[in-house]
Amino acid sequence: MRVYNFSAGPAQLPLEVLETAREELTDWKSSGMSVLEVSHRGKDFVAYAAQTEANLRSILSIPDNYKVLFLQGGASGEFDAVPLNLSTASDTVQFVNTGQWSKKAIAGSKRQGLEVQILADEAASGYTTIPDPGVFPEAGAAAYLHYTPNETIGGVAFDYIPQSPNDLVADFSSAILSTELDVSKFGVIYAGAQKNMGPSGLTVVIVREDLLGKARPQTPDVWNWKLMAENDSMLNTPPTFGIYILGLVLDWIDQTGGLKALGERNRAKAAALYNAIDSSDFYANPVALNARSIMNIPFTLANADLDSAFLTQASAAGLTNLKGHRSVGGMRASIYNAMPLEGITRLIDFMTDFERRNG
Amino acid sequence: MRVYNFSAGPAQLPLEVLETAREELTDWKSSGMSVLEVSHRGKDFVAYAAQTEANLRSILSIPDNYKVLFLQGGASGEFDAVPLNLSTASDTVQFVNTGQWSKKAIAGSKRQGLEVQILADEAASGYTTIPDPGVFPEAGAAAYLHYTPNETIGGVAFDYIPQSPNDLVADFSSAILSTELDVSKFGVIYAGAQKNMGPSGLTVVIVREDLLGKARPQTPDVWNWKLMAENDSMLNTPPTFGIYILGLVLDWIDQTGGLKALGERNRAKAAALYNAIDSSDFYANPVALNARSIMNIPFTLANADLDSAFLTQASAAGLTNLKGHRSVGGMRASIYNAMPLEGITRLIDFMTDFERRNG
Repeated sequence: MRVYNFSAGPAQLPLEVLETAREELTDWKSSGMSVLEVSHRGKDFVAYAAQTEANLRSILSIPDNYKVLFLQGGASGEFDAVPLNLSTASDTVQFVNTGQWSKKAIAGSKRQGLEVQILADEAASGYTTIPDPGVFPEAGAAAYLHYTPNETIGGVAFDYIPQSPNDLVADFSSAILSTELDVSKFGVIYAGAQKNMGPSGLTVVIVREDLLGKARPQTPDVWNWKLMAENDSMLNTPPTFGIYILGLVLDWIDQTGGLKALGERNRAKAAALYNAIDSSDFYANPVALNARSIMNIPFTLANADLDSAFLTQASAAGLTNLKGHRSVGGMRASIYNAMPLEGITRLIDFMTDFERRNG
Repeated sequence: MRVYNFSAGPAQLPLEVLETAREELTDWKSSGMSVLEVSHRGKDFVAYAAQTEANLRSILSIPDNYKVLFLQGGASGEFDAVPLNLSTASDTVQFVNTGQWSKKAIAGSKRQGLEVQILADEAASGYTTIPDPGVFPEAGAAAYLHYTPNETIGGVAFDYIPQSPNDLVADFSSAILSTELDVSKFGVIYAGAQKNMGPSGLTVVIVREDLLGKARPQTPDVWNWKLMAENDSMLNTPPTFGIYILGLVLDWIDQTGGLKALGERNRAKAAALYNAIDSSDFYANPVALNARSIMNIPFTLANADLDSAFLTQASAAGLTNLKGHRSVGGMRASIYNAMPLEGITRLIDFMTDFERRNG
């Protein structure tokens, strides 16, 4: 029985994608080879990677003056790659701290020797809020302003794009492809694939062309965006299977109506779950109303002693991986693109029933 | 029709591995989830990764005082990670230059600001030779001595392990698991997975414990061997599917007799192909007899004008990816673990026939 998998990542994928991958796994495009076995420099794979990039550009409306890179190392690798690639112009960089992933990005820029200015730190709210948009425009010059549009652990999301005199860099790991996005507002967008794009091990970087060529000399070649752009992300062997699955996921997005329809579905899914939480005294979500993520929804039970029973019974009902992050506790429902509305309905039904029996 | 795939990497995998992966692709261990979808922190995957590490330790006889890490970035990433992790003790590092991959490793250590001593450079032979073992013992102190046991492009392999007063670091990408190995002779062994271990995107690092903790402060967390060892390679999301396939490949090695039997099969396969090349005036391999790789066998045709016809006809006969690297020309047969003797026999038959028709 296929379950509804609420994992924060690696996360549920569309069943259609998995079925296509299964069907082709021992013989890709009648090549007599698995896609796992084909050379990244062979013409079939080169064409597939180029088509995948073209489809991503089309779906996300990426402007022509941006490069799309398929890298390795995860968003965590980019925490070091971003400062290495962008910091020859200035040693000062700006951050917003909205939680655990912001903190790790900040640590990466510090590790690379940069002067970090924190423009806003949401510690006072326990990282359940976003800053006022007014803090950004007047903050002075820096190599970049980095923020985390969606905090996977805290379930906190920005409902606006910061306006800054500096180039905006954003870790979009848990929000990419969840709805329409104006890429032209950003200098750099990066994201690990394992939420909305495919398996872990693939990192997508979208970078405005004029930001290439600012890398420090010690930047590793495999993370040097300019070198990678010049080599179509194949300076070394790319994670070919990750690119393959991303291609299938993009086909699925196209076939199910594109980003606009996906955004509407995602907002409807999240609204249904928040409504169930808010209309109950048994469940609670701590995040400010204007900062609620549509991808990651943490919630607590009125009595934490029931957490373990909730998780066990949910899992038995085919609703898995609902345990909250150890730093937050309680529950977390990650409801990425591949989670259908039916999964949300089933979760809400279970929650209602659990409350009736235990509330 | 399944072909014999002589790609240098990503490379042919055992059909049994692909069939198991296909069978399990939409439902792994009756979890109702694909292995692509399971959390790396879930107990099933944590157990699988631990078992995979244990099996690798057993098959390679890795001593207890070594850590095994599953990382991202490829061997090319390690060209920077090695100097970052090992260079606090000394700014001087030693290299042997036996060809293209040695050169890239050398460039990585230079990029990280280290003083590189080249103990031997095989340029005079056109990189078809290995140095005399006598050059290493007296070469003085350095943070490490790095060499490339098997040059994937040149088809040049060491038939001995250098004896040095310094810790030995080796890029084993195209030789790992090809035969038995005395891991205790090395400080660090690293390898991209995409030849003998699985798909691209997974990098295996085997490091002696006393070498942990020598990293420079700017070492990226995701490449910091000590941090990764302390976190069972799960400081960030690992390439879960790569680890999954590695586990299946290790099972296959066990089931087919282990490394000793594999080494015998690999030597027999290589001997048959070298014999066919050497006993012909039409084909030639330029590598010195004591430096011939059992994994990557480049060869030329007497008349390079026939290269294109050779490749087209070979491919039509189900023998694919035989084109040599652009820097070397001619042909290259990469015959990793998953290439059966039958594939070699078929290639030799084709070569004999092609020579008869064109020689």
